[in-house]
Amino acid sequence: MPPTQKTIIGVMGPGEGATENDKAAAFTLGKLIAEQGWVLLSGGRDCGVMDASCKGAKSAGGLTIGILPGTTRAGMSDAVDIPIITGTGNARNAINVLSCDAIIGCGMGAGTASEVALALKSDKFVILLNNDEISQRFFRSLAKNAQLEYANSPQQAVALIKQKLSEK
Amino acid sequence: MPPTQKTIIGVMGPGEGATENDKAAAFTLGKLIAEQGWVLLSGGRDCGVMDASCKGAKSAGGLTIGILPGTTRAGMSDAVDIPIITGTGNARNAINVLSCDAIIGCGMGAGTASEVALALKSDKFVILLNNDEISQRFFRSLAKNAQLEYANSPQQAVALIKQKLSEK
Amino acid sequence: MPPTQKTIIGVMGPGEGATENDKAAAFTLGKLIAEQGWVLLSGGRDCGVMDASCKGAKSAGGLTIGILPGTTRAGMSDAVDIPIITGTGNARNAINVLSCDAIIGCGMGAGTASEVALALKSDKFVILLNNDEISQRFFRSLAKNAQLEYANSPQQAVALIKQKLSEK
Amino acid sequence: MPPTQKTIIGVMGPGEGATENDKAAAFTLGKLIAEQGWVLLSGGRDCGVMDASCKGAKSAGGLTIGILPGTTRAGMSDAVDIPIITGTGNARNAINVLSCDAIIGCGMGAGTASEVALALKSDKFVILLNNDEISQRFFRSLAKNAQLEYANSPQQAVALIKQKLSEK
Repeated sequence: MPPTQKTIIGVMGPGEGATENDKAAAFTLGKLIAEQGWVLLSGGRDCGVMDASCKGAKSAGGLTIGILPGTTRAGMSDAVDIPIITGTGNARNAINVLSCDAIIGCGMGAGTASEVALALKSDKFVILLNNDEISQRFFRSLAKNAQLEYANSPQQAVALIKQKLSEK
Repeated sequence: MPPTQKTIIGVMGPGEGATENDKAAAFTLGKLIAEQGWVLLSGGRDCGVMDASCKGAKSAGGLTIGILPGTTRAGMSDAVDIPIITGTGNARNAINVLSCDAIIGCGMGAGTASEVALALKSDKFVILLNNDEISQRFFRSLAKNAQLEYANSPQQAVALIKQKLSEK
Repeated sequence: MPPTQKTIIGVMGPGEGATENDKAAAFTLGKLIAEQGWVLLSGGRDCGVMDASCKGAKSAGGLTIGILPGTTRAGMSDAVDIPIITGTGNARNAINVLSCDAIIGCGMGAGTASEVALALKSDKFVILLNNDEISQRFFRSLAKNAQLEYANSPQQAVALIKQKLSEK
Repeated sequence: MPPTQKTIIGVMGPGEGATENDKAAAFTLGKLIAEQGWVLLSGGRDCGVMDASCKGAKSAGGLTIGILPGTTRAGMSDAVDIPIITGTGNARNAINVLSCDAIIGCGMGAGTASEVALALKSDKFVILLNNDEISQRFFRSLAKNAQLEYANSPQQAVALIKQKLSEK
C-alpha cells in the first residue's frame, strides 16, 4: 500500500428507517473509525446511519466520503467531506462495498441487506452490529469462512476490524 | 401499457453454487414463464439458475434477456436471445430488478440475496421459491405488506405472479 | 454465435434536440434494421431519434430494446418492446454501446457524442450519419483504423454494417 | 455549501495515449488545484494524465480522489489518496463528471471525449486545455452559452475556474 493511501471503512445502515439505537451506534462507530486514522465511507444521505456515522467521524476530526445515489448534492449529509455523485441509484451500493477495506452493517433494512450481501459476494470482511438472530443466521449461511463477524458494540466492531487489517 | 410492450419476469438465483434442485426448478420456471407469453430476464451467465431458466424458456419458444456483468458476451448462456452487456459487474443486479415486473428468487446465495433485497427496496413483487425458513423469515422482516410471497413449486410461483399482475 | 442470439444494432441520437432530418433518418434506419432481421437498440425515450428509430423498426415488425436512464418506464417510447430500466442516468450510455454489434450516430448532441466516444473506446464499429464535417473530423481523430465510417443515407449506413458483419 | 465540504475539480485526459505535453500540463494542473485548497478528482489509473495530475496535487500537499473502473486497486496511481472502486468500467466516466464542480479536459482521446461530452450534458463547467482547433470547434457546437472555455496554460485554466466558482 502506497504511503498516501488511506484505509477506508464503510458503515452501512438504514436511512429513514434507522432506530435511535442504530443512529447512536453509528455516531460512535464514526468517531472510533476517525480516531483510528481511517476514512469513513457511507451512502452519504442526510438521515439515519449515513448521517450519524459521518457526524461521529467529524466529531473526531476524521475524513468522510459519501457515495450518493442521485445526480446532485441534494439530500446529502452536512458531515460529508467528499461527495461522490454517482447518479446510479441503488446500483451505487455495489460501489460502496467495493471501495471499502471492511464493512460494518449497523442496523438492517432492504438497502443495507443488499450492501451486506454484495460485500460478501465481493469477498469483503463484514461485521454485523446490533443485528437480530435471524439476520445473523441468514448472512452466516452466505458467508465464506472468517469473512463475517458479529459485534455487540461499536468498540468491538472496530477492534475486530483492527485485528483483521493487521493480518493482511 | 402500450400494445407492443412485454411483461418481463426475472428469475434470480445462484450461478456456480446452484443445487440440482435449483436448476430443475429454474428450468420449469423458464418454461412456464414462456408459456404465459412473458419474457424471461436473468443474469445471463452460462451456469446455474441463469442458464437453466433461459433453457427452460427456450424449450417453450420464449424470449430471453440476459443482463451480463462483463464487457463482452464471454460466459453467456447459449439460451440468451437478448444479451445486455452492462460492464458494471454486480452493480448490474440493480438493473436486473428494476427491469422486471416481478422477481422470483430461486435458490439462495450472496448475489441472489442482493437481488432480492434490491427488489424489495425498489418496491417490486418478489417470490421466494424453495428457500429455507431462515431466508423466508429474514426477507419477510424487510418486505412491505403483500410484497413478498413464498412458493413451494414453480407452478405456484407463476400462479402467484399471474394473480398479482391481474390486480394492477 | 449460438443459433438463438440476435444481432443488435444501436441507433444513437439526440432526444429533444433532434432535427426533423434526424428523426426521418432514424425512422428509416429502424425500418431497414428490422428488415435485416436485426434487433434495434436505443436509449428508449419517447422523443427524438430514440422514439423515431423504434417506431421505424416496429413499422417493419422488428424487435426493439430501450435502455432507459430512469428507475421506471415513465417517459419511454411506446415503440419499445423490451425496456431495460437501468436507474443509472447517463452512465447507461456505456451499456448502450457495449450491448451493440455496431452503432449508428444519427444527428449529434452532447449525449450522442458521449455514446460515439464510448463506442470508439470500446472497439465497436461506428457509423456517423448526416453529421457535419467538424464532427466527422473530430471522431476520425479518435478512431482506430477501419472502425469509423460516414454515411449519407440510412441505406448506406445499413449496407456498411451488413458488409462489416459479414467480415467477422 | 456546508463548512466541511470541499470543492472538487476533475482533470480528465488520456491514459496510455497521453503525450509528454499532456502529462506535464496535468502535473502542473494538479499542483495548482491543490494550492487553491481544492480536491483533485481523476480516473485514478497509474498512467498518463490521471497519474500526472495526482502526482502534481500530492507535490503540493493536496488531496486526490481516483474513480477507478475495475473491481480492485490494481493499476491505481500511487498518488491517489481516496480510491473509489466502481467496478463499472467506462460507465464510471459519468460518475467522474457528476462528482466535480468543474472539469478540465487535458489532452484528448476517446475516453476523454466521452467525459467532456457527459460533462456538457450534465451542465458542468468545462475547460479544454491544449486541445486542437477541431476539438474546440466540436465541443463548442455541443455546449451551452458560457459553459465551455479554452485555456492555453494550466495557470489560465485554474484562473477561469476560480472566476467561475466566485460567480456562484
